[in-house]
Amino acid sequence: MSLVVVGSIAFDAVKTPFGERERMLGGSAVHFSLAASFFTDVRVVGPVGADFGEAEYAVLHGRGVNTDDIERVDGGETFFWRGHYEYDFNQAHTDDTRLNVFGDFEPKLSEASQAADHLFLANIQPDLQRGVRGQCGGARWAGLDSMNLWIETARDSLCQTIAGVDLVFLNDAEIRQLTEQPNLVRAARSVMDMGPKVVVAKQGEYGAALFTENGFFALPAFPLENVIDPTGAGDSFAGGFLGYLSAQDDWSSESTLRRAMTYGSALASFNVEEFGTERVARLERDEIDERFEQFRQITALEAPATA
Amino acid sequence: MSLVVVGSIAFDAVKTPFGERERMLGGSAVHFSLAASFFTDVRVVGPVGADFGEAEYAVLHGRGVNTDDIERVDGGETFFWRGHYEYDFNQAHTDDTRLNVFGDFEPKLSEASQAADHLFLANIQPDLQRGVRGQCGGARWAGLDSMNLWIETARDSLCQTIAGVDLVFLNDAEIRQLTEQPNLVRAARSVMDMGPKVVVAKQGEYGAALFTENGFFALPAFPLENVIDPTGAGDSFAGGFLGYLSAQDDWSSESTLRRAMTYGSALASFNVEEFGTERVARLERDEIDERFEQFRQITALEAPATA
Repeated sequence: MSLVVVGSIAFDAVKTPFGERERMLGGSAVHFSLAASFFTDVRVVGPVGADFGEAEYAVLHGRGVNTDDIERVDGGETFFWRGHYEYDFNQAHTDDTRLNVFGDFEPKLSEASQAADHLFLANIQPDLQRGVRGQCGGARWAGLDSMNLWIETARDSLCQTIAGVDLVFLNDAEIRQLTEQPNLVRAARSVMDMGPKVVVAKQGEYGAALFTENGFFALPAFPLENVIDPTGAGDSFAGGFLGYLSAQDDWSSESTLRRAMTYGSALASFNVEEFGTERVARLERDEIDERFEQFRQITALEAPATA
Repeated sequence: MSLVVVGSIAFDAVKTPFGERERMLGGSAVHFSLAASFFTDVRVVGPVGADFGEAEYAVLHGRGVNTDDIERVDGGETFFWRGHYEYDFNQAHTDDTRLNVFGDFEPKLSEASQAADHLFLANIQPDLQRGVRGQCGGARWAGLDSMNLWIETARDSLCQTIAGVDLVFLNDAEIRQLTEQPNLVRAARSVMDMGPKVVVAKQGEYGAALFTENGFFALPAFPLENVIDPTGAGDSFAGGFLGYLSAQDDWSSESTLRRAMTYGSALASFNVEEFGTERVARLERDEIDERFEQFRQITALEAPATA
């Protein structure tokens, strides 16, 4: 099975209370691809500038990610984001954003990417997302991420785009904002009423919640004593989630989706242990499986001894 | 087994987006007692004024709570709190606080209460909590709640008091503030270093996390479509938790503590379904057991089909 992701490829400058990096590989499509690569064949689609070099490709190729659809713009510069975190890692402070080649991005998928079994639309302008969805009409399922900017400036387009996908990943504040419904359970149902079968509420340090037609599941974030850099955690989560799902026949069953939540949470937890892609780039599959088992242990709940 | 709770008994005026009550029974010791009463014999200790009447006693007696140690101050008025919530139910807005008889409260426990097997110190000034702990020297275990006010104004006293109890209930912001440690896992370990064996981080709509010497467990809040009034949720949680624990021989085992988390979460979830004590006052034990089973269902996670 194959999975194509369309989104940003970036250089990030990040400072946290635990250190800083002046220029490191980042972007939603990159974090997603690396996380998903442990489970399925991944193709990444996005624009880069002339400054995107062999070292950056090597990180993606090191995890077997197909980069044929990375569009290199001669003379252009790669999307650049500078930000910092204080002790509250749920809050990223943006210091500088230079869209560069990402500002003119018009995704055109190769035939190979159009034929992918599964699609993830990382957080880009919803009109573009919908265009990509149209190019991948045969995908077995499609997932989507978005952000408050598009809810505020392109709500109608975003709602149309959501209507065309199967799984939606948003943080819980965004789900409430999109639906204007303060109760998260009702808000998630409202998103499902637009079309998707699955809504995943990302909750940062509190983990994530899964809403399906008849089901609910919540998983805490993995309890880490050392969180170094949260950048890319949400995309790593979606990558682990959908990468696993891409390899499953019964993708919409409750037990499969719960396992996908757990793989996503595992990948997010590794992602934040070091800066940028550093930890996930050298991650091994058995480490993921071990963390999955630890998730089972920290959530295990026995029935009462007596009724 | 018996459990004594010392804390506030109050009249609350509460307004939420879903309605309001001008004067209803409340207070930490009341919410705790009612929740704990489903599992063990409860004695409540706290002051009331002459305005505290038969209707209020009847709610407590209706759940079998022993009120012999309620201290009635002739001519006094009961502690009164007025507050409101907007759509963010994690944030209570206080509009008026009249301590009344609670301002002069000096807890003196009867012999029967001093002989109780277990003790919960609800959120009152930490010197008073420590005095009560001294009066109950024979208790098998003691639990404690506190708040940011005491961390800011009586930190040393609070730390001394924490050193003398076995279980600490605080919200996660308070745990971080108390220990000056932004990482919650490390912060909880720092609280355990003061003496307690168990630290419970209350996380509002996200549920709660349990820290023990070698264990970690997290449970989401029950997914409710109708949350009417969050007042007393934290005390109902502690009441369900410690009420259950009070009836268990192996109170410090990991599996018992996890079940206590679940009963606490169940009681909190019922508490918020209606105003004040209205829902819990007419709750039946089989409803609690049903919700426990639902918690098992919404957290169940199967191992992968293949390793």
